Amino acid sequence: MDLIYILLVLLVATRLCGEFAERMKFPALVGELVAGITLGVIFHHYSSTFPVLSNLPENEVFKGLTDLAIFFLMLLAGVELRPKDIVKASGPAFAIAVGGMIVPLMAGMGLGIVFLPESSLKMAQALFLGTALAITAVPVSVKILMDLKLLDTKIGKTIVSAALFDDILSLVLLAVLTAILANGEIPGVDRLLLLVGKVILFFITTSVLGLYVLPALHKLAARFKSDEFEFSALLMVSFLFALLAEELGMHFILGAFLAGLFFVKRIMSDEVYDTIKASLTSWTMGFFAPIFFASIGLHLDLAAISEIPLFLSMLLLAAFLGKLVGAGLPALAVGFTPAESIGIGSAMSARGAVELIIATIALEAGLFNHPDPAPPEVSFLFSAIVIMALVTTLVTPVLMRFSIGNPGHNRAQHID
Amino acid sequence: MDLIYILLVLLVATRLCGEFAERMKFPALVGELVAGITLGVIFHHYSSTFPVLSNLPENEVFKGLTDLAIFFLMLLAGVELRPKDIVKASGPAFAIAVGGMIVPLMAGMGLGIVFLPESSLKMAQALFLGTALAITAVPVSVKILMDLKLLDTKIGKTIVSAALFDDILSLVLLAVLTAILANGEIPGVDRLLLLVGKVILFFITTSVLGLYVLPALHKLAARFKSDEFEFSALLMVSFLFALLAEELGMHFILGAFLAGLFFVKRIMSDEVYDTIKASLTSWTMGFFAPIFFASIGLHLDLAAISEIPLFLSMLLLAAFLGKLVGAGLPALAVGFTPAESIGIGSAMSARGAVELIIATIALEAGLFNHPDPAPPEVSFLFSAIVIMALVTTLVTPVLMRFSIGNPGHNRAQHID
Repeated sequence: MDLIYILLVLLVATRLCGEFAERMKFPALVGELVAGITLGVIFHHYSSTFPVLSNLPENEVFKGLTDLAIFFLMLLAGVELRPKDIVKASGPAFAIAVGGMIVPLMAGMGLGIVFLPESSLKMAQALFLGTALAITAVPVSVKILMDLKLLDTKIGKTIVSAALFDDILSLVLLAVLTAILANGEIPGVDRLLLLVGKVILFFITTSVLGLYVLPALHKLAARFKSDEFEFSALLMVSFLFALLAEELGMHFILGAFLAGLFFVKRIMSDEVYDTIKASLTSWTMGFFAPIFFASIGLHLDLAAISEIPLFLSMLLLAAFLGKLVGAGLPALAVGFTPAESIGIGSAMSARGAVELIIATIALEAGLFNHPDPAPPEVSFLFSAIVIMALVTTLVTPVLMRFSIGNPGHNRAQHID
Repeated sequence: MDLIYILLVLLVATRLCGEFAERMKFPALVGELVAGITLGVIFHHYSSTFPVLSNLPENEVFKGLTDLAIFFLMLLAGVELRPKDIVKASGPAFAIAVGGMIVPLMAGMGLGIVFLPESSLKMAQALFLGTALAITAVPVSVKILMDLKLLDTKIGKTIVSAALFDDILSLVLLAVLTAILANGEIPGVDRLLLLVGKVILFFITTSVLGLYVLPALHKLAARFKSDEFEFSALLMVSFLFALLAEELGMHFILGAFLAGLFFVKRIMSDEVYDTIKASLTSWTMGFFAPIFFASIGLHLDLAAISEIPLFLSMLLLAAFLGKLVGAGLPALAVGFTPAESIGIGSAMSARGAVELIIATIALEAGLFNHPDPAPPEVSFLFSAIVIMALVTTLVTPVLMRFSIGNPGHNRAQHID
């Protein structure tokens, strides 16, 4: 059976490379992406030896599985994000988040407007570039802060709060982007208002359902006798939220994310919550995520490096400087030292799953097919974005260790 | 996204019907199958209202998912089966298992030889019928014994041991059946010997890997730092065993089952084992199994009842009498009372996931397309087998309660 063969090869390659990356003190995601890229090159060169594997990007079942992988990654991201943490986030974190969002967004859009050719989708491509640069990977930053034993310090909490804000803001940007992709062009003011109305309607509906209906539903589910009914209930709610998002013109990942956000310990027994969360984590991190990151790597074309070297360099520069200036300056302004501000700026530089998910969505929606034929800046845009994510995520831990990783410094700043 | 819509509809329908069945003291599987059948009828009649859902049996992604569902159901069946329990099974259980296997096997093959039309696949179809009748559903019997509080009694342990033997024997039958389906005809003596050699090679290879290599691998995996690596390791091993089974001409479910069998507590920490088993159970019972049973129901054509009433009645009769005589007589011979022997015979009557999995495999392999055009006995064979599974599983609990469900009897027989 082809599917099992595919899954075995991808799982072994990604998990071993992921482990290697972890040992080198990089996020596992970096290793998993590199595994996918390497496999892609191998399959491409020896396509007659690996007929099933070299056709992977066209395999419908594999595409369906990566869609499910995206779904469960976003659901887990929602489950792991505690709304309370965002509300608790202080003023400085918010300023850092907004700065670290707007500057890269503008830089990315500017880059797009200057470099990309005219087409009906040019503005959408520019907005996509901006969104991709604006995102920060919460789990990557958290992982590095844990390694540096800085998670519980003032600087650690500020970084995590700011990254959380960024995650939410980037999903709102994604909602706009999805609507534009569906329309094929930048909407007028009337359509934009309609879109904003739908986004608000979506958040209100899911919030009402999440805060008032879900607790009652979970109480009901607890009285069901079938095995694992409560796990099924979480899946049902998240599928429902995902469909609601699609109905209102947004992407299904927004629904999955919000369903995860409302899945909280308060509305069920501790034991049930812990079991469900552990199951979701096992399958997402142990099965779906590696498959998804491998698929990203398989789609990547390394020729981007030789085809659009100038554009790629500008993109990398914008990715670093955007976050460093956008998040670092507000940090400096609210009283962090220059070294700390550089640390905060570089911590916000890491991209991760959400950025790769958004890039995949844009790829599937055909954003990189216009104008037709597409010049290299457009046809290699997906690969450029993935390379950017890879490089920033690789450099972030190094920069953070360099700026705020001094153990003496940590002891001085520890707030407990 | 179509897939999410499909999964939501199927999950809600199957789980609610499954819960209803449980409340009526029937196995959840019965409700889930009925949900699938009902949905199939609705989609068929209102195909313009549900374009996506009415095309489900042709949906490649959905097919891939049901294949994964079959895979994980068999993996979980292996994990839940403890080899020790089979070894411990006493002589009487073995006699009951063999009798309860051979008589229905012969009855099914006889039925096929008499009723089915000549074609190159006639013997394969007859063997399939025999295999389908010979299977006993361990989980269904266990569930009913638990409900009757009979699991820890002599009669309960005998039933479970015998059903376990049957499961193993039916998988060996499936190995033969798969080889025949691959060849398109009954193999000659030379090919049959080759097949037996391959089956033996498969069991020896997996046993050596399972008993000597896996413990070392799990020790290694425990030292890996990546999240959920040990869960991935179980998946890798089961994918590998599944591919090995396919390479040797057997079906992949045999590999999944054996991988589960060798996944034991002894080779890892209790905590890791419990977490992995819980995750596997959540996803299999809460996501994959309902989807699989719904897909079975969707493939079912109720017209079988009006098109081949005689054949269907004979099949049902053979299903009951085969087990009642085949398992009941040895039980009587080793000293159980007549009522207990009837109880044992009817407990062995329940069919379940494994039988439906084998039917699905045969359907996908095109067993029911010969001769071309196929007469109703052949084209409705799949539906007839599913109806048989449904009816026997529905009647089993009733017969068991009637024969051995007397509480006074239970107390007298309790061995602890």
